[in-house]
Amino acid sequence: MGTGPVHEALSALELVDHHCHGVVTEDLDRTAFESLLTEGDVWPGSGISPFDSPVGIAVRRYCAPLLDLEPHAPADEYLARRAELGPDEVNRRFLAAAGTGVFCVDTGFAPHAITTPAELAGATGAIAHEVVRLETVAESVAARGVEPDGYADAFRAAALDAVRRPGVVGVKSVAAYRTGFDLDPARPSAAEVTRAARAWLARGGRLEDPVLTRELLWTAVDLGLPLQLHTGFGDNDIRLHRTDPALLTDWLHLTVGTIPVLLLHCWPYQRQAGYLAAVFERVYLDVGLTLHHVGPVRARAVLAEALEITPFRKLLYSSDAYGLAEFYGLGALAFRRGLGDLLQDRVDAGELGLPDALRLARWAGADNARRVYRLSDGH
Amino acid sequence: MGTGPVHEALSALELVDHHCHGVVTEDLDRTAFESLLTEGDVWPGSGISPFDSPVGIAVRRYCAPLLDLEPHAPADEYLARRAELGPDEVNRRFLAAAGTGVFCVDTGFAPHAITTPAELAGATGAIAHEVVRLETVAESVAARGVEPDGYADAFRAAALDAVRRPGVVGVKSVAAYRTGFDLDPARPSAAEVTRAARAWLARGGRLEDPVLTRELLWTAVDLGLPLQLHTGFGDNDIRLHRTDPALLTDWLHLTVGTIPVLLLHCWPYQRQAGYLAAVFERVYLDVGLTLHHVGPVRARAVLAEALEITPFRKLLYSSDAYGLAEFYGLGALAFRRGLGDLLQDRVDAGELGLPDALRLARWAGADNARRVYRLSDGH
Amino acid sequence: MGTGPVHEALSALELVDHHCHGVVTEDLDRTAFESLLTEGDVWPGSGISPFDSPVGIAVRRYCAPLLDLEPHAPADEYLARRAELGPDEVNRRFLAAAGTGVFCVDTGFAPHAITTPAELAGATGAIAHEVVRLETVAESVAARGVEPDGYADAFRAAALDAVRRPGVVGVKSVAAYRTGFDLDPARPSAAEVTRAARAWLARGGRLEDPVLTRELLWTAVDLGLPLQLHTGFGDNDIRLHRTDPALLTDWLHLTVGTIPVLLLHCWPYQRQAGYLAAVFERVYLDVGLTLHHVGPVRARAVLAEALEITPFRKLLYSSDAYGLAEFYGLGALAFRRGLGDLLQDRVDAGELGLPDALRLARWAGADNARRVYRLSDGH
Repeated sequence: MGTGPVHEALSALELVDHHCHGVVTEDLDRTAFESLLTEGDVWPGSGISPFDSPVGIAVRRYCAPLLDLEPHAPADEYLARRAELGPDEVNRRFLAAAGTGVFCVDTGFAPHAITTPAELAGATGAIAHEVVRLETVAESVAARGVEPDGYADAFRAAALDAVRRPGVVGVKSVAAYRTGFDLDPARPSAAEVTRAARAWLARGGRLEDPVLTRELLWTAVDLGLPLQLHTGFGDNDIRLHRTDPALLTDWLHLTVGTIPVLLLHCWPYQRQAGYLAAVFERVYLDVGLTLHHVGPVRARAVLAEALEITPFRKLLYSSDAYGLAEFYGLGALAFRRGLGDLLQDRVDAGELGLPDALRLARWAGADNARRVYRLSDGH
Repeated sequence: MGTGPVHEALSALELVDHHCHGVVTEDLDRTAFESLLTEGDVWPGSGISPFDSPVGIAVRRYCAPLLDLEPHAPADEYLARRAELGPDEVNRRFLAAAGTGVFCVDTGFAPHAITTPAELAGATGAIAHEVVRLETVAESVAARGVEPDGYADAFRAAALDAVRRPGVVGVKSVAAYRTGFDLDPARPSAAEVTRAARAWLARGGRLEDPVLTRELLWTAVDLGLPLQLHTGFGDNDIRLHRTDPALLTDWLHLTVGTIPVLLLHCWPYQRQAGYLAAVFERVYLDVGLTLHHVGPVRARAVLAEALEITPFRKLLYSSDAYGLAEFYGLGALAFRRGLGDLLQDRVDAGELGLPDALRLARWAGADNARRVYRLSDGH
Repeated sequence: MGTGPVHEALSALELVDHHCHGVVTEDLDRTAFESLLTEGDVWPGSGISPFDSPVGIAVRRYCAPLLDLEPHAPADEYLARRAELGPDEVNRRFLAAAGTGVFCVDTGFAPHAITTPAELAGATGAIAHEVVRLETVAESVAARGVEPDGYADAFRAAALDAVRRPGVVGVKSVAAYRTGFDLDPARPSAAEVTRAARAWLARGGRLEDPVLTRELLWTAVDLGLPLQLHTGFGDNDIRLHRTDPALLTDWLHLTVGTIPVLLLHCWPYQRQAGYLAAVFERVYLDVGLTLHHVGPVRARAVLAEALEITPFRKLLYSSDAYGLAEFYGLGALAFRRGLGDLLQDRVDAGELGLPDALRLARWAGADNARRVYRLSDGH
């Protein structure tokens, strides 16, 4: 790992992780651990283990020492030691290593037994905020039962209730998973929404109707809070080419000047995201999720592309960690190291002044998120 | 900055800047300067300054010393010194630093008071040629008044008049901005053009009808001069995904063997542009605009991608500078340094012979443009 | 070239080239050689030679010494020496240099007089397997004459016959060239196939009907053998944006768990291919063709992107060499060196354990292909 004043400053900086999830609180056997280690599934009998992938290599390299093992410890040894320590101790170690001062937690995705935001933050004396996943709100409204022509109002009311809860600082949409972004950007009419709601309520299942997705995005505009949008890389529910954030341009034009829009993950469209951040005042981006999946070495390369034209006020840090405590630590490490190497090398080459580099690091690691989410000092 | 014979050769080479605009001749206050520094807008009250972006860092690093300031001078100091020197002196210094022998100037975009091509070139004893922006010609025809069924002939006549003026070496289209490239590639029928012209002439405004854009591109073929096409990165008028030059493939097949087509900017589609340059005889590319926006460090990375498969006869230099004299200097610096580092490192590693490297540098910096535009010696 | 244990292991490893073609057995004059050197055409009178491109530079750098010339020997000297040695000796030298133990040869593309798989492998004591190009089978069925309503059965029977020949280990489709991947993913109905076959059989020519392409891809599923799919970069028949493998996602969902799918070439969509390999159990990728076209220096960069999230069981080696013996040697060199540099640097930086690096290299260079194609030991 590189050294120098930028690295030192980033090491000392309490990060704001503006997008993450809860950590699993149960013991994890090998299958359960591997299924959380990958965006693919576990493929029994295939002979293909998620440990044999960049994220697996990164876990063995950087997480093993935090469990008192040698770097590159074999997977079996790693899992045995992890079981021996137990989830509370494992979670505490990795969360402490993350050095995160504030977590903004998406609470709308929880197929496992995971921490609440307060539990997540409490483990290390950090502060937790909540991000409301709007698809989850919509699906709760449908599950409770509603007439098609009352759906729009009921969803709006439920979303308002959700965001008025203490600690909520933003909303999130997984439209990328459900429909992709090649949508009609216009707000749908009430009649269109009713018609689409009728079909959905009859059919049941996840919200993945394009009209209702548009309604959801426009409701987010009305709510007035920062909107996080999953873009790019995810599991195989995604149609990757439909998650290119450039496809949002027409919608961004229609909603310009309303709410901050935070493009999450972005890979492999980090340059496209940077373009949007450069030309739309309220568009921001991170390369969370990607950072731990590609590992610290390539995190620098991905960050370098993400920063080619992005204004320095527009890059945020997130881990997008879910489930495994390792990802909070690894995401933070990959961010600190990738950005630190990139900036320090530019300082060393005379390309960038040190005060500028330190400011940029602080902005990306914490201050930009504080501005966007209007977090008060110490929050 | 690297050193070695390739760098020396590129430093000594008078560049042909095959695509640029005029430079502003007035004093620029902070807002005016910042608005020219970014492809986004200036966002008053946002706390987000274009100085806090890669291009702003590059200006402070590389342009400040040309104004007798230290590298990384603060923005306020930079602007104060710039005002003190006045636009004539500032422009002269940066244009001299560019070391450009020939400018091919797009004269069709001039929202500010800017230099004519002769004024631009005259400041440093360079030679100016003109590139006619066809959308501007079409909009002038519409503004003068024409019957819909006379539009096609009137546009063609006006375009012919425009390109017959002394010093005109090519034409340009901003179809990327207006419609994107996912167009029917076929030449539209006379009836289609008349119908589309009727609607446009009634509606007024910019030319952004797809049929009329196709007519414009086919008229360019008839004119027989090299055609510059904006592709990729630009301001927020762009739908980035619709500016991927690969979308032009069908049109390139229909027009193959007619005119040289020059793909401008290309980022983040520089690899796609390289593919087209590799498989179509008369397709060329540059990474202008990108070079100064990403700054010298990343210019090398972008050039490396642009050159992965591109034949060496196909890469040209442009600054795509508009407005700020800084961009002529910074574009030239980023090109010389990015290409110089890339080639010199390959020579040093034994990957490339020095004579080949020198030839490639000369071709990209000047000779390829001379060939495409049929510039005579010394022009 | 880098050195270290990973390089040594890769040098000693007999590669499995899971996708290549035959090598030309005739003398090649300059035009014939140049036309095989490029994915573009030869452009007589243009002054643009394929030697003046990255692949030309790589040939002069790395192939010239194998013909007893200095590195960077001029093209004329290179071609003269090549003619002097004659095709048998030239082919023998480059095939020996490739160090390939197994060739899987696509026999469906042979516009020149080229080696059979047995001749190709025999030159160096290697083993040859065959890959059946399904479009060629379909076009043979059409050429023999068939009724439209018998086409589907006749194609299936012919494909079955073809894959039952000894030595056949897989099938291949060039759907990317013919229609691109933005196809309806569903298996077409018998009536649709008959209708489309009627039109095609009346019209003649290549198979490029979307319905028949879908039929072909679904027949591949029924055949049960690994399916190679050209994706990304190729000659100007391609519409590059329609060859993004992400466009296959819906089809991959419909066929999940059936056959291994091998994404060939992929550039510039290697990250997209890596995503698919990470989230679909039976999706694999290579960056063949690209490796020799970009040359050894950029091969590392392309491999680094291809490996950002790709499970290490999913990367294969191929040269995609066709015609020029140089490409077998150059592809192998670029792979060994690109991957060797990438892995060795990570080992040296403590990012990756040496045993892991060696295993990963062996998997990508040979073992992954052996698994996918069920090649027995020594095959």
